[in-house]
Amino acid sequence: MQNFVFHNPVKILFGKGTIPAIGPETAAFGKRILLVYGRRAIKENGIYDRVVESLQAADLEIFEHGGVRANPRLGHVEAGIALARRHGVEAIVAAGGGSVIDSAKAIAAGALADHNVWLFFTGKKSIKRVLPLTCVLTLAASGSEMNSAMVLTHEAKELKFGFANRLLYPRVSILDPEATYTVPPAHTVYGAVDAISHVLEFYCTTLDPDTPVQDRFMEGLLANAMASCERLLADPRDYGARANMMWSATLALNGLTAAGLGKVGFPMHLIEHSLSSLHDVVHGAGLSVVMPAWMRYHLEEKKARFAQLGRRLFGIEAQDDRAAALAAVEKLQAWLTSVHSPVTLQELDIPASDIPRLAANTQPQAKIWRLPEYTAARVEEILRLCQ
Amino acid sequence: MQNFVFHNPVKILFGKGTIPAIGPETAAFGKRILLVYGRRAIKENGIYDRVVESLQAADLEIFEHGGVRANPRLGHVEAGIALARRHGVEAIVAAGGGSVIDSAKAIAAGALADHNVWLFFTGKKSIKRVLPLTCVLTLAASGSEMNSAMVLTHEAKELKFGFANRLLYPRVSILDPEATYTVPPAHTVYGAVDAISHVLEFYCTTLDPDTPVQDRFMEGLLANAMASCERLLADPRDYGARANMMWSATLALNGLTAAGLGKVGFPMHLIEHSLSSLHDVVHGAGLSVVMPAWMRYHLEEKKARFAQLGRRLFGIEAQDDRAAALAAVEKLQAWLTSVHSPVTLQELDIPASDIPRLAANTQPQAKIWRLPEYTAARVEEILRLCQ
Repeated sequence: MQNFVFHNPVKILFGKGTIPAIGPETAAFGKRILLVYGRRAIKENGIYDRVVESLQAADLEIFEHGGVRANPRLGHVEAGIALARRHGVEAIVAAGGGSVIDSAKAIAAGALADHNVWLFFTGKKSIKRVLPLTCVLTLAASGSEMNSAMVLTHEAKELKFGFANRLLYPRVSILDPEATYTVPPAHTVYGAVDAISHVLEFYCTTLDPDTPVQDRFMEGLLANAMASCERLLADPRDYGARANMMWSATLALNGLTAAGLGKVGFPMHLIEHSLSSLHDVVHGAGLSVVMPAWMRYHLEEKKARFAQLGRRLFGIEAQDDRAAALAAVEKLQAWLTSVHSPVTLQELDIPASDIPRLAANTQPQAKIWRLPEYTAARVEEILRLCQ
Repeated sequence: MQNFVFHNPVKILFGKGTIPAIGPETAAFGKRILLVYGRRAIKENGIYDRVVESLQAADLEIFEHGGVRANPRLGHVEAGIALARRHGVEAIVAAGGGSVIDSAKAIAAGALADHNVWLFFTGKKSIKRVLPLTCVLTLAASGSEMNSAMVLTHEAKELKFGFANRLLYPRVSILDPEATYTVPPAHTVYGAVDAISHVLEFYCTTLDPDTPVQDRFMEGLLANAMASCERLLADPRDYGARANMMWSATLALNGLTAAGLGKVGFPMHLIEHSLSSLHDVVHGAGLSVVMPAWMRYHLEEKKARFAQLGRRLFGIEAQDDRAAALAAVEKLQAWLTSVHSPVTLQELDIPASDIPRLAANTQPQAKIWRLPEYTAARVEEILRLCQ
């Protein structure tokens, strides 16, 4: 096990009927708040009303910044920052999924900065202070509700960048599984795939061979994300499955899986971010295509690791590591297909002719994320396996 | 899954060479500190010197309160409280295992109270404020380094009580696996058994049948505590095994395993505390005797749960739940014996004639812990299975 610091201060309120706590929990941080949310869903399913009612009951003055979309964009965040400054807001409330929470984090940091928020993402500026953030989660996927990371798309530059800073932890996150009852099947699946990808990135990129505590934890999260996803395709209002999916997705990227693994990376996210930034594909759908291809590309090099995964997660019995590793990738890909998640670029309507442009698009992020081994040529090879 | 709040603010510094951070980390909380530690070990293995050196380098004024023993006692804590008050200390540093950290927690709370610290344990007073606490852990066992619980023995009343309050979380805990290299084999095993018992209490007392995220996490911790323990009996200086044991023990009782399980209890600890308070047995050794007996007593009622444990942890293949459950208890008991941990009262030199007195001794704690079903008669029945 490698040395690590683990310090996750987020307060989680989890369960049925917890949304009305958002008002009192937020009131601890200020009176004037910016409410960040998405587009249609939150108003259609009644969560918007319940959040606003609770904030009003706590005597908070609400300024609204709706309209966040999947693959959230710099322009919309900049508008939120201007709004927060204009009204002197003291805290941010995010009500939504990962895109909404990430936008809220960017606004929380950008509102107190004397430069454009994008400079945090390029590593040219570091975050010194942020507005306090509270969240009501409506999608089990990103883990942003309990971590210090955020992802944003610079639409003019066609770049989707992500980064983390410990000031970005939300103060409080409310996780009511019932808030995800109305998430459509496809997005339920993409959320599960996102959680699975977060576990797999760490599981597959650690170079420490002696991390059995983390391994068992990660394997359990993978098994649960998959099982919960299957239950939800059968019954979208299965409370237990919604709860298990939500908690699995949160734990998949709250720092605990990575603690002790040493240097890990996000190479699959690196590649997916190009699919999202150039073709606006849903993040989970993009990851679903990249994951099996990335594993095939690294099969020989990481066969022992993939074989362990295959044996423990899929009950693969092959003695030979390479055979077990290959079977693991095939099982994962077959599972993705079984839950109607794409596994080829074609299914995303991305033509093979676009591969060089996608590969080139990864390079600025590869540099910032210190993944020099992911040259455009290598990414191109991996993308050619996504067919 | 049941509703829960999870909010664990402890900062963990984990790994080789982390002990010198204790000075700078503690300096954030005050200049005048009380250093709480045990008896011989910490001076013999050099950790005392390294802690003091780091505290001095950070310009802290150190007042010392050594001599904490296993099953820590009220009298010694009262002396520590008097010392803390007399010198107006601003923070407490614990360097030791669970007994030292628990004593430090009691001093941290008692120093700012206007009544005897024991009233916290009897539930007659609640904690309002505490002195900040930082820890250097030297034994993988109790989990106290990352939780809000403490246990103390009232020597005159012959009562060992435990309780939790969220003000009792340490601010910072330093976990250097190398600090446990010199823990003797028997205490390494008792530490593993303590961690195992923390997982088993929750695993076996939850009544929620749909907690697969927590189940997989707990099963992984059990597998790792057992595997690490075996590695350490073969090689006490196996760094990976020390690290895995330490992190497993911390995660076994930091609130994450229990989050979502609903009401859980500590019936095995209830019974063990009588063994410790009346016979001063090592906590882990007492638990080792109580666990299999407690499981046998509840076999019929909890057979589905024990069967799942048996199948996943020990690979038991029996289809019938009762048969699998019984096999699980037998496997656990056999494993305890294999690592030279006691499984009968006789091995603890406790005569059967003492069973009624031990059972009676559990009743005050059973009342405070709201475990009315654990009458003296029932505890006596369980203790008769410890033979």
